[in-house]
Amino acid sequence: MKVGFIGLGNMGSGMAANLLKAGHEVTVYNRTPAKMQPLIDQGAHAADKIADACRGDVVITMLADDAAVEGTVFGDSGIFNSLGSNAIHVSCSTISVALSDRLTAAHAEAGQRFVSAPVFGRPEAAAAGKLAVAVAGPPQAVKTCEPLFQAIGQGTFHFGEKPSLANLVKLSGNFLISVVIESLAEAMALVAKGGLDQHQYLDFLTSTLFNAPVYKTYGGIIADKKFRPAGFAVPLGLKDNRLVLSAGEALRVPLPLASLIRDRFLALLARGDESVDWSAIAELAAADAGQSVQSKEAAAPGSVASTRR
Amino acid sequence: MKVGFIGLGNMGSGMAANLLKAGHEVTVYNRTPAKMQPLIDQGAHAADKIADACRGDVVITMLADDAAVEGTVFGDSGIFNSLGSNAIHVSCSTISVALSDRLTAAHAEAGQRFVSAPVFGRPEAAAAGKLAVAVAGPPQAVKTCEPLFQAIGQGTFHFGEKPSLANLVKLSGNFLISVVIESLAEAMALVAKGGLDQHQYLDFLTSTLFNAPVYKTYGGIIADKKFRPAGFAVPLGLKDNRLVLSAGEALRVPLPLASLIRDRFLALLARGDESVDWSAIAELAAADAGQSVQSKEAAAPGSVASTRR
Amino acid sequence: MKVGFIGLGNMGSGMAANLLKAGHEVTVYNRTPAKMQPLIDQGAHAADKIADACRGDVVITMLADDAAVEGTVFGDSGIFNSLGSNAIHVSCSTISVALSDRLTAAHAEAGQRFVSAPVFGRPEAAAAGKLAVAVAGPPQAVKTCEPLFQAIGQGTFHFGEKPSLANLVKLSGNFLISVVIESLAEAMALVAKGGLDQHQYLDFLTSTLFNAPVYKTYGGIIADKKFRPAGFAVPLGLKDNRLVLSAGEALRVPLPLASLIRDRFLALLARGDESVDWSAIAELAAADAGQSVQSKEAAAPGSVASTRR
Amino acid sequence: MKVGFIGLGNMGSGMAANLLKAGHEVTVYNRTPAKMQPLIDQGAHAADKIADACRGDVVITMLADDAAVEGTVFGDSGIFNSLGSNAIHVSCSTISVALSDRLTAAHAEAGQRFVSAPVFGRPEAAAAGKLAVAVAGPPQAVKTCEPLFQAIGQGTFHFGEKPSLANLVKLSGNFLISVVIESLAEAMALVAKGGLDQHQYLDFLTSTLFNAPVYKTYGGIIADKKFRPAGFAVPLGLKDNRLVLSAGEALRVPLPLASLIRDRFLALLARGDESVDWSAIAELAAADAGQSVQSKEAAAPGSVASTRR
Repeated sequence: MKVGFIGLGNMGSGMAANLLKAGHEVTVYNRTPAKMQPLIDQGAHAADKIADACRGDVVITMLADDAAVEGTVFGDSGIFNSLGSNAIHVSCSTISVALSDRLTAAHAEAGQRFVSAPVFGRPEAAAAGKLAVAVAGPPQAVKTCEPLFQAIGQGTFHFGEKPSLANLVKLSGNFLISVVIESLAEAMALVAKGGLDQHQYLDFLTSTLFNAPVYKTYGGIIADKKFRPAGFAVPLGLKDNRLVLSAGEALRVPLPLASLIRDRFLALLARGDESVDWSAIAELAAADAGQSVQSKEAAAPGSVASTRR
Repeated sequence: MKVGFIGLGNMGSGMAANLLKAGHEVTVYNRTPAKMQPLIDQGAHAADKIADACRGDVVITMLADDAAVEGTVFGDSGIFNSLGSNAIHVSCSTISVALSDRLTAAHAEAGQRFVSAPVFGRPEAAAAGKLAVAVAGPPQAVKTCEPLFQAIGQGTFHFGEKPSLANLVKLSGNFLISVVIESLAEAMALVAKGGLDQHQYLDFLTSTLFNAPVYKTYGGIIADKKFRPAGFAVPLGLKDNRLVLSAGEALRVPLPLASLIRDRFLALLARGDESVDWSAIAELAAADAGQSVQSKEAAAPGSVASTRR
Repeated sequence: MKVGFIGLGNMGSGMAANLLKAGHEVTVYNRTPAKMQPLIDQGAHAADKIADACRGDVVITMLADDAAVEGTVFGDSGIFNSLGSNAIHVSCSTISVALSDRLTAAHAEAGQRFVSAPVFGRPEAAAAGKLAVAVAGPPQAVKTCEPLFQAIGQGTFHFGEKPSLANLVKLSGNFLISVVIESLAEAMALVAKGGLDQHQYLDFLTSTLFNAPVYKTYGGIIADKKFRPAGFAVPLGLKDNRLVLSAGEALRVPLPLASLIRDRFLALLARGDESVDWSAIAELAAADAGQSVQSKEAAAPGSVASTRR
Repeated sequence: MKVGFIGLGNMGSGMAANLLKAGHEVTVYNRTPAKMQPLIDQGAHAADKIADACRGDVVITMLADDAAVEGTVFGDSGIFNSLGSNAIHVSCSTISVALSDRLTAAHAEAGQRFVSAPVFGRPEAAAAGKLAVAVAGPPQAVKTCEPLFQAIGQGTFHFGEKPSLANLVKLSGNFLISVVIESLAEAMALVAKGGLDQHQYLDFLTSTLFNAPVYKTYGGIIADKKFRPAGFAVPLGLKDNRLVLSAGEALRVPLPLASLIRDRFLALLARGDESVDWSAIAELAAADAGQSVQSKEAAAPGSVASTRR
């Protein structure tokens, strides 16, 4: 398929590479052009401007936040003005429910189609084509994009015709992850102060009721105090937290756990270090327990990545 | 091994039966004698009084709470006064860290040994010999009891020589489960109000990052609104919550998530129905979202059990 | 002084009337023209459009929210384009810190001056000229406006040269009020369930440590269950809560009490009734205590007003 | 009147002195006898043992906590065994609702009478005879004690015949104070980080809506960072918080604000300093805002006391 791909960050680079591997004809665009080179080396076409990435059947965006997506879509020579009739914009970014609804309406009015397909997984999963893809949008458009989802993920999950429902799944999923982090932080502060070894405790948990990847990954980070370099930096955590709280506000659904975690993120940011992993809220739980925590610097990036699997 | 077993409730009956199956010579005691008959039918000896269950190498207690254990141990003809020198008291009940420490000291002073071995799992797991057993105590005593743990569980996890550390593991584990319930309750209220099907949402979660038994079990109960009959009634949930908060207080460790969930349990109990499952705090999250929830009565007990697996 | 006054709601009408009484030449503007008539009857000039209210030394805005102020200031024939050089825009509305900063910069660039002067008090206080005025802005401009503040308030409090600091005072003040409401709600639910009369309890509190107007006003509303008609409707409460949380987020200051109260407002709104007073979060505290609350309809508006003093 | 007075701490010493000044015949008892001397110098009789303080019409207890009261009442030669028929035990201590109920039943059974009369005020108020007294108990007994309440307080407030209701008033009152502290802590952290002077801010608050003693006292302590020496040490704050949470638990009333503040007290205690004032939770709010707080040592005790009025 002829596909445009906009946004070559940690996640997007891996996703675009997997589309190429799957045999699609991919035109890439990135605001910082240097990041395009590795993909060009793998066979991608380079787009000089956004419009050049909008000449195929589908254009995929994988961008940092609402503002980046809005700029890319509604800018003068943006997707909205460049995409052909009946062509599909697939948004994989973690954006707000409100923007997703706005994109749905705008593309429909322009005779274009909009599919929301946010993804779950860290950069390593993106590189390995092992993301989980939550999809919602017009059935025909979703069906057309299926081979693309198969290229980037190991599973596609459908949530109906209203694109923003996939965003709600993504945001609530990240909310659930943040709660796992906070709960592990509190439990591990408790048992550590009681005299238990955190790794031993974690082995027990993840061998029994909590044998899910999310407990293993974040429990390991907390026990190892490996909050740097960040796999998912705390400003991103706060952003997603803000989006789920906004979705809750719009729907009139209180989320007391999200409120509690919001305050943790702010306290973490108040220290002045924005480069730490969002799981470093565990340092706050430890500090509240009177235990000073010294975040370890990773000896080598490679070892960190493997620790996080 | 010659073993006494005190406390034949939903959990204890299954555990004692598995000890018999494994070939141990078991003398059972229960305050309400009628509950002893099924075990006697399976080959157990009946104890007329607590002391009669204390004549072997080991006596196991599986009782409801601190008060029940205190009464059984420190009563006039209780375990403390009946157990032989060097014999072992294994406490499988979910009791406080403080009582565990008190039992440790008392038994040591009397020349007896104390092992703490709280278990994880619902009654079905107890019946199937598939509990997870968290053990701490004097190494020789723990080693002696190993065959008993193998008979009742599918895995034994060791937490050192201080018995109360196993209780801390148990209490913090139940705390983590309660957080899973509350987080699912909030997330599922959000997506449901947004228009998603809760089962579809849950299938996604438990196929990806959250594929752990605890998410499947409680997500299913919430989606099905099967809060009755209770697998673990809300007063028990509140009791365990109180114990983990007490442990945190003694150790000077704040547990804000436990505090939040405590208030949920109280609000649930304030309705006047103590027979509901602790996961019915999901009804509060739904009510706060303006969604009235009608708890379903189970059509048949059998179908409920299977739902909960 | 020659003054324009924009925004004749419950608060603005009283404020404009007091400016007239103090002898100022007031030109009023309101989007819904009918509300101008009572002021015209009291001697005000009528403005056909915003620009007509901007021909004096000072223009005051008293509008519902950020959006209303933005529209009034930055619209095509808005204040920004109409106000003379060196003339003063006084914003009395409860707006965000961010908008206040933006107005400061915009007016400065246009050679105009901006003073922030949010007010504390309910509509009756506005009518009686008994508001408390929190002021910040360029000293000369503030001095020029002093007679206006004296006309609308019984006290002017200065917070320096940076206008948005007055907004921070206003927002944090409303936050403190919301906490008083929630704390009274919880305490009064507790003592009522224990068997005490809420009025008797309140009399004690407000005769001793808590003899402040805010405890008397809101304690009385809660004890009387007079949540309708609203003196300050819950959507306004949620808006101000959102603004203080935003200010906290921008400054990296967690406000856990504000987070908790946010969830109360959302749960209240989830019921579907937006016309209730923000103090009706007391109904949620009562409901969580298992006490059904029946909000009383006021027999006559007059009696309600007096209750609230 | 012939009165026994047991418990001559910071509060009790002042109260007993005021009873003497009012002309009552007072026999004092204190576990540490040295503290009796100043009262003896003022005309009190000394009791060698508790029983000696129980020979009059009334015995008053002003002790630290439940355990101290239980020991004093139910010990072998305690109040219960020493007090004459129809004589009155007045408990001024801040004790649990449960213990108050237990004392009510025990004294009634023994033909004695029990009045609960917890007091509000700091040690200076006790010395000045300006406490607020919350009273509940059998009407005749309360009437008999009226002159005593007038001697120690500036106002007596009646809460009916059930003694424990006065304890509920006391505990909920302390809860309300703790919320004032936390709310000021958060608001003052916010405005300080925004650039405002905390004293200026506080002057505004306490000149307008919040002109109550509790805001002045604690706002001043926070702005001055005078958390040492403690007027009311954090372990006492935690104790009272525990008692109000217990009362809430027994009555099935969630108190989310009390839960939040509990976690603050624990985090404060986790630092290892138990001698700080309970209002030092403001240091936690400041720390969460990224502002390091240096608690000032008082230059002279006298100046601290005056700061706190």
